[in-house]
Amino acid sequence: MAILIDGIGELTTNDPELGTLRDAALVLDGTQVAWVGYSRRAPVADERVDVGGRAALPGWVDSHTHLVFAGDRTAEFAARMAGKPYTAGGIAVTVEATRAASDEELAANLRRHVEEAARQGTTCLETKTGYGLSVVDEQRSARIAAEVVDEVTFLGAHLVPPGAERKSYVDLVCGEMLDAVRDSVRWVDVFCEEGAFDEAQSERVLRAARDKGLGLRVHGNQLGPGPGVQLAVRNGAASVDHCTYLTDADVDALASSGTVATLLPACDLSTRQPLAPARRLLDAGAVVALATNANPGSSYTTSMAFCVATAVLQMGMSVEEAVWAATAGGARALRRDDVGHLRPGARADVHVLDAPSVTNLAYRPGVPLTWAVWRCGVHPMFSSERDS
Amino acid sequence: MAILIDGIGELTTNDPELGTLRDAALVLDGTQVAWVGYSRRAPVADERVDVGGRAALPGWVDSHTHLVFAGDRTAEFAARMAGKPYTAGGIAVTVEATRAASDEELAANLRRHVEEAARQGTTCLETKTGYGLSVVDEQRSARIAAEVVDEVTFLGAHLVPPGAERKSYVDLVCGEMLDAVRDSVRWVDVFCEEGAFDEAQSERVLRAARDKGLGLRVHGNQLGPGPGVQLAVRNGAASVDHCTYLTDADVDALASSGTVATLLPACDLSTRQPLAPARRLLDAGAVVALATNANPGSSYTTSMAFCVATAVLQMGMSVEEAVWAATAGGARALRRDDVGHLRPGARADVHVLDAPSVTNLAYRPGVPLTWAVWRCGVHPMFSSERDS
Ligand SMILES: [Zn+2]
Ligand SMILES: [Zn+2]
Repeated sequence: MAILIDGIGELTTNDPELGTLRDAALVLDGTQVAWVGYSRRAPVADERVDVGGRAALPGWVDSHTHLVFAGDRTAEFAARMAGKPYTAGGIAVTVEATRAASDEELAANLRRHVEEAARQGTTCLETKTGYGLSVVDEQRSARIAAEVVDEVTFLGAHLVPPGAERKSYVDLVCGEMLDAVRDSVRWVDVFCEEGAFDEAQSERVLRAARDKGLGLRVHGNQLGPGPGVQLAVRNGAASVDHCTYLTDADVDALASSGTVATLLPACDLSTRQPLAPARRLLDAGAVVALATNANPGSSYTTSMAFCVATAVLQMGMSVEEAVWAATAGGARALRRDDVGHLRPGARADVHVLDAPSVTNLAYRPGVPLTWAVWRCGVHPMFSSERDS
Repeated sequence: MAILIDGIGELTTNDPELGTLRDAALVLDGTQVAWVGYSRRAPVADERVDVGGRAALPGWVDSHTHLVFAGDRTAEFAARMAGKPYTAGGIAVTVEATRAASDEELAANLRRHVEEAARQGTTCLETKTGYGLSVVDEQRSARIAAEVVDEVTFLGAHLVPPGAERKSYVDLVCGEMLDAVRDSVRWVDVFCEEGAFDEAQSERVLRAARDKGLGLRVHGNQLGPGPGVQLAVRNGAASVDHCTYLTDADVDALASSGTVATLLPACDLSTRQPLAPARRLLDAGAVVALATNANPGSSYTTSMAFCVATAVLQMGMSVEEAVWAATAGGARALRRDDVGHLRPGARADVHVLDAPSVTNLAYRPGVPLTWAVWRCGVHPMFSSERDS
């Protein structure tokens, strides 16, 4: 069944040759994009949807979330924003609630957030384990994630769980825990930060992962300058995420590597940190991705549009750079070439805005602009209110 | 017809005695709130709506917008964000397009934006003239606005239109133009800023307005320190808006006056200015309102939720302070006591979130959280997607 999406006022393809087309159309055939071009040359299809001059772009690729969790940390956030002390917070609270939840509860919570993201145009999403922190809990987190999302990352090295000894916990992560999640995950990540895992411990985790044939990711340079970026680049990680505090040497290392700098502006804001230095990275030639870091502690949003608006309004990125980073950039961070662009052969992931251009994503911050979404060519979803 | 809104998990009333209630309910009778209290004590009504534990609050009061306009300035915004020169921009572009538009076009554009705001929970909205800048064009802008929105402000003193002489333009604003709009507006505003109107010219406008029995508002201290705040306080203006650059004397003057400091964070961000010093104002005891400043040049958003999230994440306001400022604060800025709160007798303007608490407005930035809206007790609006 081929669907012609016609009447696209502005089509962002992220393809260097196709560029951005006016008065364009797309044909989706099954799960793939079959044709892209000007409306007047569009072929006939089984079904035709006219989007009335609206803008279309590839679905968001959210390459960094932590959505296998249970429990609530609203009060902790409110206290942080009110500048009040709050002792009962932190990742350990989520670990406790996640361990106590049933498989069904975890899966339902994950699905609810993934659907919320999809309603906002996110069609490819990575999520991480890391709130289990025991062999059995990490294994079931990975398994549940693999049933729901596109890309799963093992983050046993999120922090040393209460009661565990650091050295033997790293042994566990690199050995039994990694073996237990191996079949459910494509990626291994480590939180390389003061208070979490140091450079040597982080490198052990990455090497163990590589030995198992898994791809590498790093949480680094979030809370201060540190070894995360260099560690990621040296080990050929697909991405190093956060990058809030970077030295010039870090920027240079990223610019001359295949490691993507994944920036998480909603997290920087939600923790009242500075925003990551996007402009320095782009000017140096580094590849930048934008992601939500959706998680109940430091960044509880699924809104890629909010990340794009923040990147443009406050991080010196142009609209084009930010939209690319939130689509093609995320795909690069996940080393996928089937998503993040709209050329023939791409996965049929299309996001139509209730606006004539992608510029509106930053020009109209906070206004819900998602008008329709296709993921793998199916489930077109229209806002019935906007049509009435 | 009385409607019982039941099953409210958290009810923000903005009433000092009622405070915030858990497991609450509201009765709307006609256009007014008839009863507020705990669910278990709720009276019987003609109709009952169960909101399933969601949070409810007064509808947003957006006390500062410029929505009587025509034309498009997307390219100007994109160029500004890309750091590129753009000579064909500015307020004059909107003035030209607004003058060229028909009454029907202006009314339709205004209605479209007011409805967009309502879908996001804004139930009381002020808008300004100021893109006409001739007697006939200001008069029709005021008339069209009065047909659509709750509060209309005459902003003939937005800037001196191209071709006009400053002194004679101020004469026109204070004389013939003011007479022409008099029956359609409640407020008069002046843009007291370098390049617009100086202190003496601004004061002439305010005095002429007061002589006609109109309320006063001032745009001040947006682009740098200036006389706007002192001018507003001295003349008993209901609000001074922007307040991005304030001296300690300005903060003190606001704190000991009845003039509300209306902050416009989306505008500060969209023009890459610093954010207004909300914390200094609140700590000094000034009354703070938050508004969108929705307009096609410097702040093209209707999202009060975005303003609240920005205020909390980046301006040091607590969630409670920001929600108050965007509801009761806006009402104070408009000197209305029927909106911005939910005690018996209030206008039946209710905003139900798809979240258990107002904290989520900042905790989940960018996520569309409006679940239902009542304005004057009617037009309940549900997101059918969220119910499916
Ligand atoms: Zn993370
Ligand atoms: Zn304004």
